[in-house]
Amino acid sequence: MDIAKAIAGNPRLQKLLWKGHFGLETERLRVDETGRLAHTPHPEGLGSKVDHPFITTDFSESQLELISPPMDSLQEAHGFIQTLLNVVRSELPAGERLWPQSMPPILPEDHQIPLARFDGDASGRIEYREYLSRVYGRSRQTISGSHFNFSFRAEFLEQLAGETDTKVETLKEAVYLKVVRNLMRHRWLLVGLLGRSPVAHESLHLKELSSGTLLPVCCEHGVSIRCSAIGYRNPESLLTDYSSIEGYSADLNHLIEQGKLLNPNELYLPVRIKTVPDGDAVSHIELRMIDLDPQEKTGVSLHSLRFLHLFIIYSLLKEESNGFSPDEQVQADNLQNEVACWGFAAEDPQSPSTPIQKRALHILKELQSQLAKVPLPLTKEYLTALQHFQEAVEHGESAPVNHLKRAIAEKGFIAYHLERGQAQIDKLEQDAFKFHAYLDLELSTQLLLKAAVRRGIHFELLDRKQNFIRLTRDAKQEYVMQATKTSLDPYSSILAMENKKVTKQILREKGIATPTGLDFADIDEARASWERFRGQAVVIKPLSTNFGLGISILKENSDEAAFEQAIATAFKEDQQILIEAYETGNEYRFFLIDDQVVAILRRLPANVIGDGRLSIRELVALKNKDPLRGKGYVTPLERIELKEPEQRYLQAQGLDLESVPDAGKTIFLRENSNISTGGDSIDYTDRIHSSYAGIASAAANALRVKITGLDMIIQDIDRPAGAGNHSIIEMNFNPAIHIHCHPHHGENRRLDERILSALGFM
Amino acid sequence: MDIAKAIAGNPRLQKLLWKGHFGLETERLRVDETGRLAHTPHPEGLGSKVDHPFITTDFSESQLELISPPMDSLQEAHGFIQTLLNVVRSELPAGERLWPQSMPPILPEDHQIPLARFDGDASGRIEYREYLSRVYGRSRQTISGSHFNFSFRAEFLEQLAGETDTKVETLKEAVYLKVVRNLMRHRWLLVGLLGRSPVAHESLHLKELSSGTLLPVCCEHGVSIRCSAIGYRNPESLLTDYSSIEGYSADLNHLIEQGKLLNPNELYLPVRIKTVPDGDAVSHIELRMIDLDPQEKTGVSLHSLRFLHLFIIYSLLKEESNGFSPDEQVQADNLQNEVACWGFAAEDPQSPSTPIQKRALHILKELQSQLAKVPLPLTKEYLTALQHFQEAVEHGESAPVNHLKRAIAEKGFIAYHLERGQAQIDKLEQDAFKFHAYLDLELSTQLLLKAAVRRGIHFELLDRKQNFIRLTRDAKQEYVMQATKTSLDPYSSILAMENKKVTKQILREKGIATPTGLDFADIDEARASWERFRGQAVVIKPLSTNFGLGISILKENSDEAAFEQAIATAFKEDQQILIEAYETGNEYRFFLIDDQVVAILRRLPANVIGDGRLSIRELVALKNKDPLRGKGYVTPLERIELKEPEQRYLQAQGLDLESVPDAGKTIFLRENSNISTGGDSIDYTDRIHSSYAGIASAAANALRVKITGLDMIIQDIDRPAGAGNHSIIEMNFNPAIHIHCHPHHGENRRLDERILSALGFM
Repeated sequence: MDIAKAIAGNPRLQKLLWKGHFGLETERLRVDETGRLAHTPHPEGLGSKVDHPFITTDFSESQLELISPPMDSLQEAHGFIQTLLNVVRSELPAGERLWPQSMPPILPEDHQIPLARFDGDASGRIEYREYLSRVYGRSRQTISGSHFNFSFRAEFLEQLAGETDTKVETLKEAVYLKVVRNLMRHRWLLVGLLGRSPVAHESLHLKELSSGTLLPVCCEHGVSIRCSAIGYRNPESLLTDYSSIEGYSADLNHLIEQGKLLNPNELYLPVRIKTVPDGDAVSHIELRMIDLDPQEKTGVSLHSLRFLHLFIIYSLLKEESNGFSPDEQVQADNLQNEVACWGFAAEDPQSPSTPIQKRALHILKELQSQLAKVPLPLTKEYLTALQHFQEAVEHGESAPVNHLKRAIAEKGFIAYHLERGQAQIDKLEQDAFKFHAYLDLELSTQLLLKAAVRRGIHFELLDRKQNFIRLTRDAKQEYVMQATKTSLDPYSSILAMENKKVTKQILREKGIATPTGLDFADIDEARASWERFRGQAVVIKPLSTNFGLGISILKENSDEAAFEQAIATAFKEDQQILIEAYETGNEYRFFLIDDQVVAILRRLPANVIGDGRLSIRELVALKNKDPLRGKGYVTPLERIELKEPEQRYLQAQGLDLESVPDAGKTIFLRENSNISTGGDSIDYTDRIHSSYAGIASAAANALRVKITGLDMIIQDIDRPAGAGNHSIIEMNFNPAIHIHCHPHHGENRRLDERILSALGFM
Repeated sequence: MDIAKAIAGNPRLQKLLWKGHFGLETERLRVDETGRLAHTPHPEGLGSKVDHPFITTDFSESQLELISPPMDSLQEAHGFIQTLLNVVRSELPAGERLWPQSMPPILPEDHQIPLARFDGDASGRIEYREYLSRVYGRSRQTISGSHFNFSFRAEFLEQLAGETDTKVETLKEAVYLKVVRNLMRHRWLLVGLLGRSPVAHESLHLKELSSGTLLPVCCEHGVSIRCSAIGYRNPESLLTDYSSIEGYSADLNHLIEQGKLLNPNELYLPVRIKTVPDGDAVSHIELRMIDLDPQEKTGVSLHSLRFLHLFIIYSLLKEESNGFSPDEQVQADNLQNEVACWGFAAEDPQSPSTPIQKRALHILKELQSQLAKVPLPLTKEYLTALQHFQEAVEHGESAPVNHLKRAIAEKGFIAYHLERGQAQIDKLEQDAFKFHAYLDLELSTQLLLKAAVRRGIHFELLDRKQNFIRLTRDAKQEYVMQATKTSLDPYSSILAMENKKVTKQILREKGIATPTGLDFADIDEARASWERFRGQAVVIKPLSTNFGLGISILKENSDEAAFEQAIATAFKEDQQILIEAYETGNEYRFFLIDDQVVAILRRLPANVIGDGRLSIRELVALKNKDPLRGKGYVTPLERIELKEPEQRYLQAQGLDLESVPDAGKTIFLRENSNISTGGDSIDYTDRIHSSYAGIASAAANALRVKITGLDMIIQDIDRPAGAGNHSIIEMNFNPAIHIHCHPHHGENRRLDERILSALGFM
């Protein structure tokens, strides 16, 4: 079958070809401040290493293994690893950091390298590590890297099968075998491009490792000790059948029977075929030639991953002979070793005295023309990745690996990598509040998922648009929407909170203060209440909406037209409205879980502070540049808008957007203090007299609600609650958590963690 | 203070004057088929007579007392009593009915009349009834009637106080005392108009009752034995101070000290002042001169209640001397007795030899001119009531009480009233599905409230527009919206049901059949699926709306434009849509409570059956005349519309509204079978193979939902569920209950009662 031709003739296949399931795994050693391998146990905060789906240990107790689930895109897989690194970072023992280089840091004597501990584990994990220690030595097993897992979408394989008149299972096998053969043939190119382990520390005793059957190499041109013959490799070239999965599996079993492998995981080839458990069907392929890149905060750049993805597609399209003979396999093995040691300066075995650089450039060109033929237009990101690597081949000296070598030479292997390790952490910290695999989700949900990752809770996004997730651990399952809509609250309590009139009635019956007022279902009756409310400060709001929509505050209430306008605005949002006394004092958001106040926040209305030079418009633009400010609940703070409400509010102060406030003067742009309309968040959890928390608890109790965001007006937070000095103005059934986790000022109150605990995921 | 003048000058007061709190109480004797007083105990189905807030027993075990809470309008109070009568009717022992006349049916010997039983009650109920038996005789205590309770709105009293520069408490006392004095003075008029007890059965032994201190009266001109001196009255005129509440209360206490009354309830005056518990503040006034009217299904017409309300307002406005001296009181007492016995033919004590009829007409005229002066325009209903009573005074012979007398004379006292009792029951049954006090609520909520009434559960309408109620009994409280949104369901389960994609995923994971299909968040991707679905019968629907909105069924799916139109229609309702295989078979609604199937309904799409003469338009108009069909969920069935979807569906069958179907031919007007779009409901609870109920239970279990309306397509209801012969297409978190309680065909499945039980109100 001609796969390239089939794809060329079908635009739908061309689109599906780019989709797939993308997974990433990475290993990292923990080191102390001096660059010595850590001897501490796996951090307790990272949960059980046996059951944890994302974070575990590899060979050594000090060697973390981070695993992303299969994701819909490269960015997501990459972002998942970024967030796993962030989670690990936050749980590292004091003074420890992550080693950013594939080649290990300062190692102790081989036998002192701690094996991963699995106390009481009976499934052979301990025995396997003891076997590896004997065969490879513990030092070599600490060499670390990243793996890229990939599979095509089932839909792609099904449609391609249809297009080529092939059975799906037959086609699937053919597709993956072709890709793997081409990858195996050209892996030298990938090693040459992705190699970032040209130097090792003396404590690895490289010379001892290179004795025996291993080739005694690595010199100044080298790019990857890890991918060289003395790196993380089997003692000899292991040959298998690449013409059928059946043959491949049979050969693997044969190698195990011969005692050359203990199990399939020990096949240290740079490309592996993975099959489904208990079967021969291919589940995915695994690319293992990615060295840790000390320049990248995640250890691997998106460029590299995109290039690998491109190369997979190229490998699918490129014509080849079906065979991949033992001779060819040995040649490919040797070429990998050569390029690992000499880079693209290695001699091309097909044309003596010619550096392999020439063939590398040829392949890159062929890749482009192959894609163009199909036709598969490259996106900007893929094009950039391709150019990036093309330049690295053309101008060897400026290739990243040579930068790396020079930096190591200049600063020293340990000092340089310690510095890079710290730089990675600093970079990771910058936007640690995000879950980088799920940037489209609301921030509250990102935080909850991040906490779930830490605790090793499995999760699924049941409806990504709705932020509707399922959390699973063992037999326990919980459904959560938007982080705070859970099974903890009975539906009727939600409805009672949704209806401000009902909320108020229930609170009042329990003697809890709420603003006095009236409700109206009829706009004319509401207007007719003018005489009653005239001259009193009032809040006019819809019965049951959120986010401050339709709310007006009339402090003077001396203008009947403004009163009627406010009524009309509220009626736009709901069929019923409330007119309430405006309570003086500041508003605080109490977050309650299980009747207990776990965080209190004060929100300041959107504001800017003058400097005597910039206009309000300019000050807002400046404030909005803060990376913590975004749009649509994906950042802890929202950008300040300059729309009708803001302009109206400025106008009421005799200001406009071009006014220039005095230095130090705070100008508010809104009356309401919602974060969603650009307000600032300030943690007050420990600053408010405890009596108010008691009232908030009683209110949650009265509504029979487990999770709520309660808004209370308090006149003086230092004085105990008493008659007339406080009032509950609203209870929200879907309060954001991110504002308490990443406030403008103050402490992270870990509501993500607290919600998981409340849900019973300890 | 001049109240009339104050009101005349203030339009807002004029509006508020007509508002108030209206309550109604009525007593009814239970009788057997022969008209003898029932000797059975109070029906068990009516709950505890001690705690029941609405239905209890009065003096005798066979004497029901029905009590409405204070309502916002006369119609509501009247409707509440109508529904209480319906509830009682449905619980009566076989053969029993309610006696429609104030004067009792065939009584046994006095001592054989059963007292109300309160086994083990220690609060004096038994002793009080024994005391009443001694003083009045049991027979007299069985005389029954209705009471009308009324109070002005606090807002009215407050504004009137403001307008007249009076303290609210002072004004309130003055208002009620003035009204009561005027009512007491003119009560003869009300007795004359509302008297409906001109005749008694011989078993009452009227002559014996009239012995002793009582006047020996009642003759052929009489209108109310009940309100006469030998009726339900104290042995002597009891005089009290009507110039202050303090004096009134003191006099009552004095009467009790003298042994003339056992407690204030024994003051059998036609107008009573009621004060708040433990205080002297007036809570309301009670008008007690209303005889049961055998012509009215509720025992009292809305005309009568409106007239009483008018007379209260007249009594407030009418000028008078503040005093109501003991002499005046005795005269008013006597005049009541005279009119009760002689009707308006009684001699006017103020102008000898003139029938009091003349004064009556004068008062009615004065009432009108008084209202006109204020000015208080009468609504049509009040005007009709006034005219009705004016005619009754003018043309005595045609007055209702004289009709009554003639009918009794013709058919006999017992036979006539048995017939009327049956007629009342027939009338009540006609729209027994409604809760007549709450016709603005959804029918499901009306039914739930009716069941709550039966069980003696207190309730409040927290938000009437939202059908949001609170049920209370002892310490237990439950919040319910729209009858089926309760505390039983966790919020996350509601959200899972709201999202059809999530529902399907959860069901499938449990091996429960759902239609195959795809979901789309992007309209272009949905359109691009044309090739995939072309030629397959599909349903295209929004992810999460109800009531069949946005759903299209394409059985051929051979027209891409129609496919795209259906996609656009679905996207109008939601941001995500589903395209699913259209399942063949019939659709059944399974209603589950606590994982158990409690009702199954088949819904037929809106349809008409031809008669060979009428057009489809005419057939629909005819079918829509059924009183069970209405609009907006206040009837068990909805009217069939003739809008775009119906016309489109007819067009697809080659028909239009003017087509005349053959006799017996069923023409469907819609594809979807929702009751909300005019469908028919048919109970199938006992007709479907039990295996399907098992699947429905498993589905509810999987979603962790207690109350759900599950829609399943079944190919053959007689065969057990198996692969490919059924499919769950939706689970609704807010299913209507009225369709199962009052189906087009079949049994009432009492879901109202079952929900109350599930909520823990046994």
